[in-house]
Amino acid sequence: MAFKFQLNPNIKFDYNQKFLAQADANEPTLIVHQQSVKRWYTLNTQKQLVPLPNKLIQLPLHRDDCRILDFGDHYVGHLALDLSAHGAHMDAPLTLKFQFAEVPAELALDSANYTGWLSRSWIAEEVFHIDSLPTSLRLPRRYSFRYVKITVIDTSPKWQVLLTNPIVTATSAVDEENLPRPTSKDPELREIERVSTKTLAECMQNVFEDGPKRDQRLWLGDLHLQALANYATFNHPDLVKRCLYLFAGMPTTRGLISANIFTHGRPAPDDTFLFDYSLFFISCLKDYVDQTHDRATGLTLYPIAQRQLDLALTYVDHNGKLQLPESWPAFIDWGDIYDKTTAAQGVLISVLRDFLVLTTSLKLPTSTIYQASLERTTRYAQTTLFDADQGLFTSGPKHEFNLYSQVWMALAKVLPSKQTTKLMQKAYRSYFPVTGIATPYMYHFIVTALLESGLRTEGRRLLKTYWGGMIAQHADTFWEAYKPEDSNYSPYGNPLINSYCHAWACTPAYLIKKYQL
Amino acid sequence: MAFKFQLNPNIKFDYNQKFLAQADANEPTLIVHQQSVKRWYTLNTQKQLVPLPNKLIQLPLHRDDCRILDFGDHYVGHLALDLSAHGAHMDAPLTLKFQFAEVPAELALDSANYTGWLSRSWIAEEVFHIDSLPTSLRLPRRYSFRYVKITVIDTSPKWQVLLTNPIVTATSAVDEENLPRPTSKDPELREIERVSTKTLAECMQNVFEDGPKRDQRLWLGDLHLQALANYATFNHPDLVKRCLYLFAGMPTTRGLISANIFTHGRPAPDDTFLFDYSLFFISCLKDYVDQTHDRATGLTLYPIAQRQLDLALTYVDHNGKLQLPESWPAFIDWGDIYDKTTAAQGVLISVLRDFLVLTTSLKLPTSTIYQASLERTTRYAQTTLFDADQGLFTSGPKHEFNLYSQVWMALAKVLPSKQTTKLMQKAYRSYFPVTGIATPYMYHFIVTALLESGLRTEGRRLLKTYWGGMIAQHADTFWEAYKPEDSNYSPYGNPLINSYCHAWACTPAYLIKKYQL
Repeated sequence: MAFKFQLNPNIKFDYNQKFLAQADANEPTLIVHQQSVKRWYTLNTQKQLVPLPNKLIQLPLHRDDCRILDFGDHYVGHLALDLSAHGAHMDAPLTLKFQFAEVPAELALDSANYTGWLSRSWIAEEVFHIDSLPTSLRLPRRYSFRYVKITVIDTSPKWQVLLTNPIVTATSAVDEENLPRPTSKDPELREIERVSTKTLAECMQNVFEDGPKRDQRLWLGDLHLQALANYATFNHPDLVKRCLYLFAGMPTTRGLISANIFTHGRPAPDDTFLFDYSLFFISCLKDYVDQTHDRATGLTLYPIAQRQLDLALTYVDHNGKLQLPESWPAFIDWGDIYDKTTAAQGVLISVLRDFLVLTTSLKLPTSTIYQASLERTTRYAQTTLFDADQGLFTSGPKHEFNLYSQVWMALAKVLPSKQTTKLMQKAYRSYFPVTGIATPYMYHFIVTALLESGLRTEGRRLLKTYWGGMIAQHADTFWEAYKPEDSNYSPYGNPLINSYCHAWACTPAYLIKKYQL
Repeated sequence: MAFKFQLNPNIKFDYNQKFLAQADANEPTLIVHQQSVKRWYTLNTQKQLVPLPNKLIQLPLHRDDCRILDFGDHYVGHLALDLSAHGAHMDAPLTLKFQFAEVPAELALDSANYTGWLSRSWIAEEVFHIDSLPTSLRLPRRYSFRYVKITVIDTSPKWQVLLTNPIVTATSAVDEENLPRPTSKDPELREIERVSTKTLAECMQNVFEDGPKRDQRLWLGDLHLQALANYATFNHPDLVKRCLYLFAGMPTTRGLISANIFTHGRPAPDDTFLFDYSLFFISCLKDYVDQTHDRATGLTLYPIAQRQLDLALTYVDHNGKLQLPESWPAFIDWGDIYDKTTAAQGVLISVLRDFLVLTTSLKLPTSTIYQASLERTTRYAQTTLFDADQGLFTSGPKHEFNLYSQVWMALAKVLPSKQTTKLMQKAYRSYFPVTGIATPYMYHFIVTALLESGLRTEGRRLLKTYWGGMIAQHADTFWEAYKPEDSNYSPYGNPLINSYCHAWACTPAYLIKKYQL
């Protein structure tokens, strides 16, 4: 896991109230859906889920009894249920433990064993004491789940508790009861489209959240991909507009856009800065203008986009070599085993292209600086980073060959089209089956690089094996982290904290439609 | 532990709305006291309490840090405190665990190990997730405590939490800031009086609770003793009146008074019936009339008192032998190692005397039935239960000699005064130091029997060693259970559930004043 917490207490932010007002004006009205329970389970002595016969659902529960509610699909919302005491008068409080799970495997884990580096506070469980029954309990916090395990910590020997009418009040910025239909004719791909559309819908809340289970935050890297999937499905551009204004409304005093925004309560930027994420503001704005032809927004936010590029270019030397400071690392992917220098150069070249397209589509004059920068950075890649003998790009001081570099150089179109095809063919021979990469985020760029380079069969196959691999494991929504070679992988040392509905995994709906797979 | 849960689902209750309205009319206005924290502690590596230097109180806390708040004395109320995040923007929820303790020993125990028979729901702990800081957190449930351990389950690596302004909003039906002063000249006894007065004050809430930590319920056995201590200290007879009306207002359809009343929400009788507790309604009404000369209440409730006696007398045979059904056991004490048959007979005789006194003081005609019953039950005790050779009473089919029997026969004044003195002298030689008895409730009757029999020195000594023994263990209030020979004793298999402020332990203030110790 390469993600390092950044602490930048001395960095100050500028708040552009006009932009933030625009963000407010585009706040969505959430669509509410009431979902009752589909199936009841209990656990057998081996702690496996066992369906509960109908007649047992009506039975009151004793100390240590548990019920697992299955709402049939993934939801983001509030759980409510009715509780009543059966037997003698309630002579002690009722104590119930609720454990929310996006996938059944989470239910088997004991949170007491969690020692991971991410906050334990994200573990989706609650314990409630209830002093008076009957009552309708509405849990005050929003959770992201399909399953809820309810354990009776205790009643008393004199009475038991009956759980009835569990219901989820689920929300989304889009109508989840009428999800857009898949476009592919291939049943496997249709299923992947369906799940990716559901994933996106679940993450579309007050903003594009990265994951409704954890963080629940607007990250630029996720937004970039969510927006593309959104255009291909719900086409709800106002939510993209809102998010662009949130990022643009709270840059640092130097004009740098934060990697993510806190949106609980008053919006606030995180003091975390990622090179590629800042630059993707440009790509995201370009895609937005492409999609909506909303030239006014494009023109208003263009200076903010330009500022990201200008800041990036200060780290490019006269040879066209990008050398990033430690304070502004490139994310590329969570993995930390591969060098990212060349991939970061590829991101910069790719975004330079996006910026020039944006400038043109807004009918603005193109400064020669950016064209020159594109040429210089591209030339550096061609002449210095490309190893003609190997047919691959090297990365970093140790001239490492890795998949990140080939993918981003292909996406940056550094080489002529036919050579890019050869590059990705070589990459395919060298690095497939892919190992050591755990994020659908990076897999999205690998698949895109294959498809853009004409390796349609390989791109389609990877999409099927990777996202299809999650479906084979009964994914209702796509995951934050998935390593085909290690299906229990958690970047946090414990799957309890994994987000199993994660925005950056939602792109197949976009890829399948765009490339007509 | 002899206490068995009773389940009587088929028993129906009569609700006397006039009586319940009288109970309502005498509901006390609780007096509120705001108490700020007196001392801050943390735990050292050996999990011992270590005072926290002032400058450390101001430091924000990380994952697994803990603070122990000491409010300087026992309180019953709601905890509130201010919470703020320090460091970067809050990027995860805050999770705090609160553990409330009446005595420090509770803080060292892990609730996960509790396997006792009483409901785990009584374990005084809460876990809260807080999504937004700063905030003022007011815990919604009332707790009974002097100490609160707050453990930071987690913040995140980017920020810490600062706890400030912890405050208890404490309640009592009496003014705890002006407790009645002790009456004894003996410093040890004065301290015992002080602690017993505090114990009573803490249990005087909306009703006389048995213990504010657990049950929080109106039990007749406790009320009987609390009322006596109350007359000797706060003299708040309206609360006794309220409680008498609550019991009288909800008997079974046969007219039997329940052992206790639930008073959270709408009052309701428990379906638990104890012979001695039902009868103590009579003694409690007699004491109330003695104290207040409120003849109107006495006359109104007299038929209810009489009904308890009439029901009891149905279990007395023509020889004067009481033989109780399983459905109406005598409590006497929690212990289950000694036979209680003779003690129950002693309770009946004692209460018969109280009933006759009550009848006289209300200037009602005395039915010859009760006088005859008194004579018959007394004669049975004298002739059949008393073993002249041993100078002690036997109990049960196995002719067991035990302390319960001697105490209750002494209190029932079955023998002439001098012989009662001899009886208690013999009991003293036979059963002291007392072992196998864990309740201050039974110890109250032992001390009373000694004092009533003229064994003033022995009574005073027992009062000092027993209640003083709890003070030697730093009791701020007297306990539900205390065995001098086993100071870690818990009737529940775990002291986490023990009530360390328990009404039935509050009688020294009464005993010391009444007997001018």
